Amino acid sequence: MANELIYLDNSASTRLDERVLEAMKQYYFDTYAVATSEFAYTLGIEAREALDDSREKIAKKLEATAEEIVFTSGSTESSNLAIKGVLRANKKKGKHIIVSTIEDFPVLNSAKALEREGYKATYLPVDGEGFIDLEALQNAITPETVLISIQHANQEIGTLQNIQAIAEISQEKKVLFHSDATHTFGRVAINIEKLPVDLLTLSAHTIHGPRGIGALFVRKNTPIKKHLDGGFQEFNLRPGVENIPGAVGFAKAVELITAEENERLKQLRDRLIDKVFKQVPDVTLNGHRTKRTPQNANITFHFVEGESITLHLDMHGIAVSTGSACFSKSLEASHVIMGIGGDHERAHGSIRFTFGRFNKQKEVDKVVEIISEIVKNLREISPLSNK
Amino acid sequence: MANELIYLDNSASTRLDERVLEAMKQYYFDTYAVATSEFAYTLGIEAREALDDSREKIAKKLEATAEEIVFTSGSTESSNLAIKGVLRANKKKGKHIIVSTIEDFPVLNSAKALEREGYKATYLPVDGEGFIDLEALQNAITPETVLISIQHANQEIGTLQNIQAIAEISQEKKVLFHSDATHTFGRVAINIEKLPVDLLTLSAHTIHGPRGIGALFVRKNTPIKKHLDGGFQEFNLRPGVENIPGAVGFAKAVELITAEENERLKQLRDRLIDKVFKQVPDVTLNGHRTKRTPQNANITFHFVEGESITLHLDMHGIAVSTGSACFSKSLEASHVIMGIGGDHERAHGSIRFTFGRFNKQKEVDKVVEIISEIVKNLREISPLSNK
Repeated sequence: MANELIYLDNSASTRLDERVLEAMKQYYFDTYAVATSEFAYTLGIEAREALDDSREKIAKKLEATAEEIVFTSGSTESSNLAIKGVLRANKKKGKHIIVSTIEDFPVLNSAKALEREGYKATYLPVDGEGFIDLEALQNAITPETVLISIQHANQEIGTLQNIQAIAEISQEKKVLFHSDATHTFGRVAINIEKLPVDLLTLSAHTIHGPRGIGALFVRKNTPIKKHLDGGFQEFNLRPGVENIPGAVGFAKAVELITAEENERLKQLRDRLIDKVFKQVPDVTLNGHRTKRTPQNANITFHFVEGESITLHLDMHGIAVSTGSACFSKSLEASHVIMGIGGDHERAHGSIRFTFGRFNKQKEVDKVVEIISEIVKNLREISPLSNK
Repeated sequence: MANELIYLDNSASTRLDERVLEAMKQYYFDTYAVATSEFAYTLGIEAREALDDSREKIAKKLEATAEEIVFTSGSTESSNLAIKGVLRANKKKGKHIIVSTIEDFPVLNSAKALEREGYKATYLPVDGEGFIDLEALQNAITPETVLISIQHANQEIGTLQNIQAIAEISQEKKVLFHSDATHTFGRVAINIEKLPVDLLTLSAHTIHGPRGIGALFVRKNTPIKKHLDGGFQEFNLRPGVENIPGAVGFAKAVELITAEENERLKQLRDRLIDKVFKQVPDVTLNGHRTKRTPQNANITFHFVEGESITLHLDMHGIAVSTGSACFSKSLEASHVIMGIGGDHERAHGSIRFTFGRFNKQKEVDKVVEIISEIVKNLREISPLSNK
């Protein structure tokens, strides 16, 4: 049965690549020394070299330097470190942060947590496709503003913000800029030599790397305070015994991504969107048609509940997400769909499809066939339906 | 060459057990769904069950319940969550914390960070063997005291505090009690039904489990605030996509520990201490002879530098630690050896030996032979020596 399952939810990108585990093994079983032992003995140096080599490989993907990559336990911690660390380190300048209303929870809730501590936050609204308004951003900046945190791509609808323009505004206004690149790192090119961003949240498990490891890009000389206290690891920005197998796995995951693969994901995405729009009436694409991550499609099937679709797909061994997957326990409507002007009906009828390395074209075709049938049947019995 | 290396530093316990990785693989490659997807489809439920099953196994080791185990990225984060989370959640009661002077850096530096935010911290001194004075602890408690954080065992000298007595004092005085059990969980029995401790820092990589995962035991109804902001995972105490392979590996590592193994480690420890004391003059055991973790020995070789010993041992393929391994980059004298009344000479001449599952008796014998020779040679040329 296992072979027939189709993952098109965010698990599609969390499946570890076998080659990643192969790369990690040496550091679990042979070179397992603690990196901070470097002054004590040779194997500590070998472990440290593996860590720095991983840092280098990840940095290279951004055209950054190794010293600008701080390993963390994942994107949640990276965004906490970026936002709280920068605001707390720059109190003298001011206590104001600007985020968008559709940020993922680590950013959104870090901003809210800071507000409870006496900081001020502006939540920039987005338009119907999820884009912030650049003029509104400029108007929101005050002499008190320390940080702008606007995501590179949205976690649910895949919308790619114009981070080049945002970064240039932040540079011109002398405000620091953090971007949550959890869903773009590896999938969408980022070159920090051309993009004046100061901090980037990076994730491993979204690109077939291990869980429990992530990183924060911190541009040289960015004033920032550590969020976790302890030892002096990671340039004194993130304490704790270094997760060297995780770092090595993260670097391997980055190395395995190719431009061809990203193009292939985009084709899967477009194939699914095109087919759904041809075969199913009354659907809305959430997000922009082309300015979206290659691995994301998000469609509202009107007059039906997303929960019903997912349950029926599950019976066919197909996994997708509805509303906000990170939030499904709350059963609350997705703040992203609401943020782009959707109502509860649109949010609850939304289905997010995520494409990963192991997805095949025939899976996409099968999913569209089955979902067309499910939606048709559900609409026939739905009190919401106008049919 | 790799087969001949002898790890008696803290890497001895960070080497992953092959059986741990075997247990993790399923959750990397087959059941890799995101646990928060549980309402969406079957595989989300299977992933969630694996997570809760791991929680249950770890809880059982403490006689706790699964709901009292919060997964984190490791012991550093656990101690940050415990200390900052409890102090921030109990501001109405007071702003005072009590720790010992020889706590590991996550506890010590969390207390210092809180002081910079306006909290008050008392740093309890320890005696020559590393024990806090119970009367001094009682006297330090004020109506403002929210939390006592005293480690179960010391990270360098292995001293086992009398946490039963400390817990009872905290209970009687209605003060919360956190203990860093990084170096005892699995190795020394803890039964929270009998021990009135409120929070325990637990670690996986110290018992041949994976890095990047740890846990915090939080007794039911303990008032605590999350330290990282994001989603609602881990009973709304620790956000982020769950590291299910890590949790499964952690649980497996806990299951693999036996009372016989702990007894065997104690024999290795005692064998090393006894042999060194027989063969090498002018040595001091740091910590208590018997009230110490089974896996730790810490000996000062007077009139020589620990750095010199470690470098010479390294040439023989033997890894040990000197001073504070977590701190070796600083080249500062160990705050633990200084804390027990040692001077710089005693701190710098101290060598910590850590024993793990894969160490053998013949390794201990070989290390003692070589270290005896090294110390003898170093003393002959040492300006510190009185020989």
